[in-house]
Amino acid sequence: MVLKKYNINPDLALERQKCTFDIEEIINIFDGGKEKTSQRRKIEDVVLKSGLCHDDVPEECMSLKERYENAVRKSCFFSKLMKTELQEITGIEDFETPAIRRIADALFKDISPFLLHLGMFVPTIIGQCTSEQLMIWLPKALDLQIIGGYAQTELGHGTFIRGLETTATYDADTEEFVLHTPTLTAHKWWAGGLGKTINHCIVVAQLYTKGVCYGTHLFMVQIRDLDTHMPLPGIKVGEIGPRMGFSSADNGFLGFNNFRIPRNNMLMKHAQVQKDGTYVKPARHGKLTYQTMVFVRVTLVNEAAFNLSKAVTIAVRYSAVRRQSEMRPNEPEPQILDYPTQQHKLFIGIATAHAFQLTANWLWNTFKSVLSDMKKGDVGTLPELHALSSCLKAVCTSDAALLIEQCRYACGGHGYMLSSNLPYIYSFVAATRTYEGDYTILLLQTARFLVKAWEQAEAGKTVTPTVSYISRSLKGEKNSWRSTDEGIIKSFQAVAAGKIALCVKSIRDRMKSGLDYEDAWLLTTVQLVDAAEAHCRSVILETYCNEVRRLTKSSSDNVKIVMHQLVTLYLSYWTLQRTGDLLRYSSISEKDIDFMQRQYEELLQHIRPNAVALVDAFDLRDEILHSSLGAYDGRVYERLMEQAENNPMNAEPVNQSFHKYIKPLLQGKL
Amino acid sequence: MVLKKYNINPDLALERQKCTFDIEEIINIFDGGKEKTSQRRKIEDVVLKSGLCHDDVPEECMSLKERYENAVRKSCFFSKLMKTELQEITGIEDFETPAIRRIADALFKDISPFLLHLGMFVPTIIGQCTSEQLMIWLPKALDLQIIGGYAQTELGHGTFIRGLETTATYDADTEEFVLHTPTLTAHKWWAGGLGKTINHCIVVAQLYTKGVCYGTHLFMVQIRDLDTHMPLPGIKVGEIGPRMGFSSADNGFLGFNNFRIPRNNMLMKHAQVQKDGTYVKPARHGKLTYQTMVFVRVTLVNEAAFNLSKAVTIAVRYSAVRRQSEMRPNEPEPQILDYPTQQHKLFIGIATAHAFQLTANWLWNTFKSVLSDMKKGDVGTLPELHALSSCLKAVCTSDAALLIEQCRYACGGHGYMLSSNLPYIYSFVAATRTYEGDYTILLLQTARFLVKAWEQAEAGKTVTPTVSYISRSLKGEKNSWRSTDEGIIKSFQAVAAGKIALCVKSIRDRMKSGLDYEDAWLLTTVQLVDAAEAHCRSVILETYCNEVRRLTKSSSDNVKIVMHQLVTLYLSYWTLQRTGDLLRYSSISEKDIDFMQRQYEELLQHIRPNAVALVDAFDLRDEILHSSLGAYDGRVYERLMEQAENNPMNAEPVNQSFHKYIKPLLQGKL
Repeated sequence: MVLKKYNINPDLALERQKCTFDIEEIINIFDGGKEKTSQRRKIEDVVLKSGLCHDDVPEECMSLKERYENAVRKSCFFSKLMKTELQEITGIEDFETPAIRRIADALFKDISPFLLHLGMFVPTIIGQCTSEQLMIWLPKALDLQIIGGYAQTELGHGTFIRGLETTATYDADTEEFVLHTPTLTAHKWWAGGLGKTINHCIVVAQLYTKGVCYGTHLFMVQIRDLDTHMPLPGIKVGEIGPRMGFSSADNGFLGFNNFRIPRNNMLMKHAQVQKDGTYVKPARHGKLTYQTMVFVRVTLVNEAAFNLSKAVTIAVRYSAVRRQSEMRPNEPEPQILDYPTQQHKLFIGIATAHAFQLTANWLWNTFKSVLSDMKKGDVGTLPELHALSSCLKAVCTSDAALLIEQCRYACGGHGYMLSSNLPYIYSFVAATRTYEGDYTILLLQTARFLVKAWEQAEAGKTVTPTVSYISRSLKGEKNSWRSTDEGIIKSFQAVAAGKIALCVKSIRDRMKSGLDYEDAWLLTTVQLVDAAEAHCRSVILETYCNEVRRLTKSSSDNVKIVMHQLVTLYLSYWTLQRTGDLLRYSSISEKDIDFMQRQYEELLQHIRPNAVALVDAFDLRDEILHSSLGAYDGRVYERLMEQAENNPMNAEPVNQSFHKYIKPLLQGKL
Repeated sequence: MVLKKYNINPDLALERQKCTFDIEEIINIFDGGKEKTSQRRKIEDVVLKSGLCHDDVPEECMSLKERYENAVRKSCFFSKLMKTELQEITGIEDFETPAIRRIADALFKDISPFLLHLGMFVPTIIGQCTSEQLMIWLPKALDLQIIGGYAQTELGHGTFIRGLETTATYDADTEEFVLHTPTLTAHKWWAGGLGKTINHCIVVAQLYTKGVCYGTHLFMVQIRDLDTHMPLPGIKVGEIGPRMGFSSADNGFLGFNNFRIPRNNMLMKHAQVQKDGTYVKPARHGKLTYQTMVFVRVTLVNEAAFNLSKAVTIAVRYSAVRRQSEMRPNEPEPQILDYPTQQHKLFIGIATAHAFQLTANWLWNTFKSVLSDMKKGDVGTLPELHALSSCLKAVCTSDAALLIEQCRYACGGHGYMLSSNLPYIYSFVAATRTYEGDYTILLLQTARFLVKAWEQAEAGKTVTPTVSYISRSLKGEKNSWRSTDEGIIKSFQAVAAGKIALCVKSIRDRMKSGLDYEDAWLLTTVQLVDAAEAHCRSVILETYCNEVRRLTKSSSDNVKIVMHQLVTLYLSYWTLQRTGDLLRYSSISEKDIDFMQRQYEELLQHIRPNAVALVDAFDLRDEILHSSLGAYDGRVYERLMEQAENNPMNAEPVNQSFHKYIKPLLQGKL
């Protein structure tokens, strides 16, 4: 722990004394071992010692332009730090370690304009370039001689990539591609860093050669002069304007007016255009591009977990410091953390952060084993992985956003202050629900897989592990409710199976009444989204449960107990949330529901003494939390007042608008 | 309708041709008659013609200080307009008409620093002053010779008013009250306008006289010099710092250092302190202060409805303009409004805006009849009214916030742009869920009433109309599900009764196991919140249904049909959301649920052709909507690009940070 300058709030100090377990044990579990914890802390020390985290004026008091300029300053020095001291700790191959992502939050309350350089530009070069192309661009990118972004989304098209309008037409005479923006809606829109910062950009465009369109491909485009930073002729580029979050990310727009790039700037690892304009199809296109997509989705599930852990740390610590109301007449005001309704809002946040973190790790490990299968030529597990990553991205970002907002509400009015950091955390995660595949569309992709799996199982074929419950259900296996971990998971699988069955029936009924498959599918989509969510829910429940069991095998008993209390809380919470589904598709009874309700309420009481320790075990330094309400020392009111007094609005006792407008109004002279 | 400068987007124009009803009829229903519609439009014309609505730079691109100054400018001129032209239209007694609140949104994308002057300061003077005090302060306040606010919440206390720490100690020697802030947490915090704008403030403080504390009372306090606007000696005042919303409201903090005010500045309509310090109790304290509280809660339900109508107007129009994806290969991209999943997100928003608007009106009318009962000495209906206004404020603000965010998500990435206005609308309504009584605490107040009603009914006493279902349930009346309006409402009442019964049982079981009532209550609060919500849900369903029937009696058939389709949609939606509760407490069957699902999906199709007309019928001018996505003409992409190009970040092609940081970094010279 970092040394604190102030005394700890006595309520918080007492909470920490009550803790029944060694928080370092849990920290190690989530870091992936003692060494990883130690490496992460070294990285944090380097960044915190750099002095880069400090702002004279809080970001939220700056104008948008000032915020951007401040973020560029920090990004540049942080990049230098990464090339030097941090690389010594992590090694070059690990430049994207979660530890670096974590500590970046100490610098950027919002987001870095350089985000996509390491997040998308470099990975795409690695994944999509020929070895010759790699030799040209990768060293420059890693050495920051060029700064890049990734421009896919357009003003008129987001998730539906085939609809993109930007064209790249091959001109065999000059051996160049001509990039063009044929319509207003074809302008690239949203790419981070594009507005003012980057000088290179990977552009997704419809490839035309010899008069034929071959669909979207990737192109490396220099958009600004390296020396003057002026947009090159034929390039229209700028910032798209203020957003709910990502304020310092200079998200940009980009238009091309017959802008020419060399043939070799098409990323040609897979498909190629030869000098004469002949198009050469990729050998295994589609399959291999999964890697970036799955990587990004795992990252977003990670972000959901990480940001939820920040929100719940803030809200739990604040709830231990805040005292309000009375439980019985003339007694002192209790800590609000003592109210079961407050525990109900917050403890599920702790459990969910655990569940999502472990699910993200599991998904990534699953993917790595799929990759090694693929190298052996086996691509059979890819559709399952795609369906999994789709629904997990959708459900985890959505749940996290809701729970973060619940943490904010749980802090009452003070949660509305930007200095709490909760509104920023919400804005950030709310965006992840939309980008890289919208919630609804991703769930419908999973639903396609589920309906297909149903049909396969019906035809007697074997289905993949995460949907094996479908086969059991089709065999007529009845669900008998049991209030154990396994029993609950089985019942949630029965719910998923029941919902998929209903969708299949709806589609078939609609087809019988004369609709074709597409229309029948379309009219069933409300239910299909619901079925895919139910499937995802069962996967998360099972994964969380299994992973905790696996990871705490050698843990101390007290850690086992508290980690498993959270699992049981999570299972009970979702049981009570979904009584309707369970009554329809499992054998749960009124008595079982009463039991689960009582068990849930008792768990809140059991977890209560360890609540502060559990959020301490997220090991989030104050510099990462950026919160007046959530700092380790609990100096909540002092910080709120200090920050108010430093607010630039208070620099002068009387604002000029008094003299200009208010006084004339008061005197009837306006 | 206002004349538009541009052509209407052809998709939107076509939507309007498809409309089956006369939108003016629905507009009149919600305004309260043709004359009211005409008066509202006159008000809007005056304000729009004033030129005050225009900003050279969009608000969201300004610094916080600039935003505040801009809002003061507009507030001053708007106040002048209200004293002159607008008063001619509305009459002095109607200065707070909803029409004026509506059009104020054309001036303030965020909020006016003068908000509490008319919203709380003037109403409190009217409600809490003696006639002598009224004569002093009311004319000055109405004439804007003084500008006031209302300071209740402190840094350490919000909803729990008895915990407030600010003291007002009577000094009989000088016939003054000494206002004092004894601790850090005693500082007033949050009051709108307090930071920089107002010169008077009604302060809530603990009254001490002759050494005895008589609880919180109200005091009129001048805090700034009328001529120089400097804080008076003994006053510490300033802005609390940036917030998630309310950015231009200069919410403030306030501390007193033994600050003296004349005895007569205590608002003495009810309680009094005589010259010698004798405290005189109010005759009917408590009962009469309900008026402001209920008025504010009705206002917040209205705000929920109004802001939801804005959000859903934006999202529906955008969904008619936006085309994306393909329903079947090689067909043109459909309007996204054609997707059932999109209809599922949006149409419930239209129905909910109707439901809440009509519920707010009904609540206000109910309150007025209670007031007239009270004048006859009958206060028997007050507890019911209090319970109603508590849960309706909680549930309507919470539902509206969720649905507004759903509208924002339904607009994909563009909903994240501040120029869509959706993030502002969300931030505004999210705040109303917290202030004037937090969601959870208000529902627990309703729960107290419900448990008491249960006990009364059990004892054979008659209970008030909104809880008469409890008596029916206690008599053993079984619910038999019917898929009609009345049938569904009855089933939702059965759900509420079942949940209240379970709470009563939980409390009694816990008492049997040795807990006292307070502890048993406390441990049941998670369920009690749930029961109160269920009660509220049944009230809204019934009120919406009844009011539509009443108000469309003389409507044309087509209006009747479409208004009732929305009611049925609302009932089906909530049935499907609450299958768990209905399976537990009503006789709904699997077959009934399937029927409701199919009916719901069919309703989406029936409402689809009228969707744009239905949001047009909210009659929200573009100046009130402030939305790049939701304007009447549907020029979505043009506006987005225009606003991006006007963004101050784009005023210079190269930001200075390139020369300062990026270039040195690229060249390895940082």
